[in-house]
Amino acid sequence: MSFYNPENREVKDLLTGIHARTFWGEKLMLAVVELEAGSMLPTHNHPHEQGGIVLEGTLEFTIDEETRTLVPGEIYIIPGGVDHTVIVGDKSAKVLDVFSPVREEYKY
Amino acid sequence: MSFYNPENREVKDLLTGIHARTFWGEKLMLAVVELEAGSMLPTHNHPHEQGGIVLEGTLEFTIDEETRTLVPGEIYIIPGGVDHTVIVGDKSAKVLDVFSPVREEYKY
Repeated sequence: MSFYNPENREVKDLLTGIHARTFWGEKLMLAVVELEAGSMLPTHNHPHEQGGIVLEGTLEFTIDEETRTLVPGEIYIIPGGVDHTVIVGDKSAKVLDVFSPVREEYKY
Repeated sequence: MSFYNPENREVKDLLTGIHARTFWGEKLMLAVVELEAGSMLPTHNHPHEQGGIVLEGTLEFTIDEETRTLVPGEIYIIPGGVDHTVIVGDKSAKVLDVFSPVREEYKY
């Protein structure tokens, strides 16, 4: 199977108010992530390189020491091992995150 | 720099009517690709694994022997070395493509 409609896939809860639908190959994992209004992804890092694009809403995104408010269409790239934090405002948001290598703990 | 607004980046023409803005780290390349109405990406393959999501418009996407009409929000994953083709209808479309490893020929 090469094609996926996220609406047909159940969600995986990552944290309170943060839900993902993940899809993967051998080197890439794609995650459609919905973040409820007021949710937060505390500062963390992982060895996997991460990229992404904002699909809906706005997020306050901190990578290392740099903070930006991102809007739909904006892109981020986070090197492996670098701290990052996401704070969602008073409206929900949706992003596509991509990881390489695949995050095994996000498979389901 | 970890944050990018594709609107501030000049485009790279990939084929007639197909324009990309690419961003990369060490393992991942993200490409915001605009495909004009009536454009086509002929059957091809590359060793890089590819994933993506439709951002705007619809595309007729063939991976190996399977053809689907994809709408915004739908996801595709193409193993390295597998043939794929994209045909755009009478309205333009936009996708986010992701590659691993980075496609060196798409840097600029």
